[in-house]
This record gives sequence, C-alpha cells and structure tokens, in this order.
Amino acid sequence: MLKNEVTELLNIEHPIIQAPMAGGITTSQLISAVSNSGGLGMVGAGYMAPEALQEQIREIKQLTTKNFGINLFVPNEFHVTQDEIESAEKDLKPIRQALNLHEEHQVKIPEYSHHAETFNDLIKIVIEEKVKVCSFTFGLPSKKVIGELKAHNIMLLGTVTTVREAIEAEKSGMDAVVVQGSEAGGHRGNFISDDKESLIGLMSLIPQVADHVRIPVIAAGGIMDGRGLMASICLGAKAVQMGTAFLTCTESGAHHLYKEAIMNAGEEEMVLTNAFSGKWARGIKNRFIEEMQGKGEAFPQFPVQNALTQPIRKAAASQKNRDFMSLWSGQSPRLAKKQTVEELMKCIISEANKISGNM
Amino acid sequence: MLKNEVTELLNIEHPIIQAPMAGGITTSQLISAVSNSGGLGMVGAGYMAPEALQEQIREIKQLTTKNFGINLFVPNEFHVTQDEIESAEKDLKPIRQALNLHEEHQVKIPEYSHHAETFNDLIKIVIEEKVKVCSFTFGLPSKKVIGELKAHNIMLLGTVTTVREAIEAEKSGMDAVVVQGSEAGGHRGNFISDDKESLIGLMSLIPQVADHVRIPVIAAGGIMDGRGLMASICLGAKAVQMGTAFLTCTESGAHHLYKEAIMNAGEEEMVLTNAFSGKWARGIKNRFIEEMQGKGEAFPQFPVQNALTQPIRKAAASQKNRDFMSLWSGQSPRLAKKQTVEELMKCIISEANKISGNM
Repeated sequence: MLKNEVTELLNIEHPIIQAPMAGGITTSQLISAVSNSGGLGMVGAGYMAPEALQEQIREIKQLTTKNFGINLFVPNEFHVTQDEIESAEKDLKPIRQALNLHEEHQVKIPEYSHHAETFNDLIKIVIEEKVKVCSFTFGLPSKKVIGELKAHNIMLLGTVTTVREAIEAEKSGMDAVVVQGSEAGGHRGNFISDDKESLIGLMSLIPQVADHVRIPVIAAGGIMDGRGLMASICLGAKAVQMGTAFLTCTESGAHHLYKEAIMNAGEEEMVLTNAFSGKWARGIKNRFIEEMQGKGEAFPQFPVQNALTQPIRKAAASQKNRDFMSLWSGQSPRLAKKQTVEELMKCIISEANKISGNM
Repeated sequence: MLKNEVTELLNIEHPIIQAPMAGGITTSQLISAVSNSGGLGMVGAGYMAPEALQEQIREIKQLTTKNFGINLFVPNEFHVTQDEIESAEKDLKPIRQALNLHEEHQVKIPEYSHHAETFNDLIKIVIEEKVKVCSFTFGLPSKKVIGELKAHNIMLLGTVTTVREAIEAEKSGMDAVVVQGSEAGGHRGNFISDDKESLIGLMSLIPQVADHVRIPVIAAGGIMDGRGLMASICLGAKAVQMGTAFLTCTESGAHHLYKEAIMNAGEEEMVLTNAFSGKWARGIKNRFIEEMQGKGEAFPQFPVQNALTQPIRKAAASQKNRDFMSLWSGQSPRLAKKQTVEELMKCIISEANKISGNM
C-alpha cells in the first residue's frame, strides 16, 4: 500500500516528501538525511541565488546518492507604489527600533524582471546539475520551461490549493500535484483561487482533487506521523509532503527558538498573517503579528513586504528574539518532536504498518 | 475495525452518526432511515419547541425501534442593544423589500431566560421519552443537567473544535466528543476558543485531540464517503458524524433548491459568514451573504441576528429564491449525491471495506 506510482516516479522507498521550506531550514544535512532514509529531500530554493543553489546541490550530492528535489517560486508580476512602501516602512519603524536596526539596513525593493531572470537561471542549474525532481509554488511555469525540464526527464510537481488549480496543474503537464490543505504551515500556494477560497481542509480537499485529476495526488498540511500518512492514502493521495515534522528535526537549519516555539505551541496559536511577506502564511502568533495586525491587511504585495521585513527577521534571529521572527508552522504543533530524520521516518513507517495491520 | 467502543456505546452497527442539522432538515424519515440502516439518526432540536420535539420523538419511534439521538443548543447569555437591532434591521431592509416582506413580519427579540427555560424543558422531554443519546452544541450543560441525564443512562456527546475544548468536554463527563473540523458546514461549535482559533482542519485536529482525551473521538467536517470514514479512523477517531452527505439524501427535509445548490457547487464556493445568525457558519455564497458582507461583521449576537433574519429565510424558501436562503454546507460539495439514506450507507460501508481490504 505504501509502494505506488509516486514512489516509482520519484524513485524513493517511502511515499514521504520533505516539504521545501525556504529561509535556511532545508540544510544539506536535512535533505540528505531524508533521502538516505528512503524519502525525498527537497531544497527550498524559493529565495536562493543561482550560485548558492548550485553550491548546495553539489554539497547534497556528497551526502547522498539518492534522489532529491528542488522547489522554485514561480515569479508573479507585482505592483507597488512609493506611497505603499513608505507607509509600510512607517509601520515597521517601531519594530526596527525595538531591534536597534538603523538606516544602514535600508532594503532594496525587488523588481519583477530580476526575479524572472533569477528563475530562469535557477532552472538552468536544475538541468545542468541533473536534479531529478523539481516542484513549483505560487503558480505554474511557462510551457517553454516545462518543455525544457521534461526534455531532460525531470519529474515535475505543481502545488495547488483547490480542484480548479489541480486541473490547471494537470493540463500544464505536471507529473503529480501537491495538494496543500488549510492545515499547512508557511505560505499559501494559491495562484488562481483567492486567499479565502483556497483554505480547504485536507479531509475535503484530497478526495475532491483525486476525483478530478488523473495525475497522482501528494497531500500536504498538518501531516506529522503514520496516522496522517495512512489517512491521506485512504482519502486518495499516493504520498505526503511534510514540513513542520521535519522542521523540528535535529538536522534542520531552523533557529532553536523557532523549534522550541513549535514544540510548546497548541494548535490554536497558529494564525494566518500577511504581515511578514505580503502573502498569507500560517505560523505561530507573536508580537510582530499582533502589532502588525492592527495596521490592517494592506501591506505591499509579495515579495516587496518580504524584502522590507527581511532585516527585521534576520536581526531577530541573531538577537535570539522570537517576538519578531517568522515562526511558520502547520496546525499540528502538538505532534512535533525533537528527533533525527531517521527516527522520524522509522516512526512514521512503523506506525503506518501498524495501522494497516489493524484494518 | 468498524466495530469499537462507539458502536457499542451507542448500540449501532456502523460508526456513522447523522449530524443534527437544525431548521427542518432532520425529518423523522431521515432520522429513522439512518438508524434503520445501522447508523445513528439525530434530531437537530436546537431551535425546536418542547412540544414539537416530543411529537417528533414519538413519530420516529413509530418508524424505527433502533437508537436515535437528540441534539440541543446550550443556551449562552447574550447582550444586544436597541441600536444594534435598529442598525441590523436597516441593513436587512433592502432584502426584505426584494422579498416583498412587510412590517407584519416584525420579529420577537429572543431573551436568554426564555432560552434557558426551553432548554430545561427539552432536557425533561429527552428523559421522559427515554431517548438514548443526547448531544450538545455551543457549550456544555451544567453539572446538574449532566448528572440528571447520566442518572437516566443517556449517552452524552459534546461538540468541540480544539484540544482545549475537548479536554473540558471530557472533564464535564461527556461520554464521547464530536470533533468539528474547519471543513464542517453550518454553525461553528466553538465555545471556549475564539472564532479564528477554532478553524482547524481534521487532519490536524483529530490526532491532537485523540492524544489528549481518553473518551472516544467522533470526527465531523467534510466527511462524505468511505474514504473520509477510513481516514478519520486512521487519524484516531472511532466514528464519524456526517451532515452534508445526509442533507442531499431524498429523505432530508432540505429545500430542493438547497440540495441542488450543494450538488452544483465547487469546494471554493463555501464561505464563512456570521450574517445569517450572528454566529459564524459555513455555507454556499449567495446574494444575501454578498450583500451583507459589505456591512462588516458587527451583526447582533446569536441568536438575535438569527431571529431577525428568520422571516427572510422563510420567505426565500416559500418563494423558491435561493439568493436569500441559508445554504449551509461543508467543504466537500463535489462529493454530494442525490440518493436514499440506505444507498449512501451501503456505499460508505462497501467503500470502507474495500479500502481496508487493500491495506
């Protein structure tokens, strides 16, 4: 039951993918440990420079001979006015002050053309380095890019949040679809459906998507153990993608205060906020979120707000101050544990086998 | 695997409970068909007068010798000012006009003391009529009420939306806990946790609750078929409670336009609104919701707004106008079918057996 078209497609032993978390979490140690334990490790390359990605891929290849994957953010056009930036800077000023951040940290406002160029460079590296799996978030790449990747036999995974988006992903030529439920931590991956429409729990989302596409479904959101894996398979998924469960593993690059915050949180402390990046994402409520919530939801569009808050998040991390970090987490923090990737993987598989033995 | 402490506790063949939907949906035909098919039929008695409940219980007893249950709304104190009522009436005026509803439909503003009295009368009827199962929504009854019901060997189910609420339900003496995920249609059952905190998907909610209470967990929200039943069991639930799946059955009392609206909806059309009742609930977006959304979220508290919109919903139903009906539904409308209860139950069980056979 745990061997199927996804394990075959990705050439992995267990139908478990480590979610590509951006921002330094997916270290080469984490990724290689997942792949070496029979799952699929993924680089969260969303914000990476092409050279850094190339370097990390080469590092991972030193640590594992197994398959691993790269996740890229599909660049979307964005519009932002000088007024919006000034207003956002004003909102962030008291927080900068609380962190002793001064003007020299002035940020560079991102440009779409630069993002589009970087994306193309990242694609080139994926091809050159013969990476076997590439997944996408925030949209689907162009026909041309999909064609190039397919010509090099790279397996493609699209990230979707509704049946409508899943159908588009299948049409575009994706080999499988990662279905992100409302339980998921971090950024929402919706790209056609609007922010509110796209908050669908996996109990509803998996079977509805499975009924409407022929490509395999990979479930993502709140899955932490063998129970979640087996439930996803009952609902019609062929594999799961897990973020928070891997984030608290010893090999992940998440700040230790971030790991502790998750392990001490209740499922009720998770909130959706667009204050960190301009895009909605789920994480643990902290002072940053609370102070920014009072400012309304009108932050500059992603990735502009993300660039504006970047120095704050960086300073908070180096000052060991969790009040101003982005503490992304799915809705199952009570199931998070501090353990090695190997321990987590063994636990999931033995629990899944026990459940299927009891049926 | 489908026989367990819940089927034993409730004396039913299959671990499937028909959700107690209020407002005329749970006809005696629906309830008795569920119980006769091996599940547990439930009367949605939330808004019922004691005499009407007594009459329906006697009618159901003519139709089945099997167990069935009653759901009651635990009355909560509410505060509403004359200004709030006038402002709400003003907001509703254009909708009244669109439906040709005139002043003679002026509504009686509910009083807490009256609700509390009715609740006690409903409890008396449950005891007198020797109903075997009683469930509660919007809170937990007093120690005294719980003691009386237990003295008569009535099985008690509490409805919760978070781990914190589940722990309270167990402490209060509930025999099992209905865990309502964010996928659920109709009113949110949160009573300690706030409205936003309590929107947790079942993939996250079931295992976290199962780890924190000893009483059995019954999963509710978006479950429509054997896939949802088996997934819930993998996650740690012992039974499921299904609303929307029974609502579109031929035996349900829902308006035919309401049934059709669900069967033609996508999972994205479901929205949360507090415009119908003052309490958040999930249903299909229509003109009423869209027009009222513009007014903000500051409606009079439940059940006052519910009383104010009642003539509108009634007129919309009799005029066959779905624009102004409350079209509650969970997040899985694509899985809804027009069929008899017997067909639905057989389908669920045969699909569940097939899944467990494949494991």
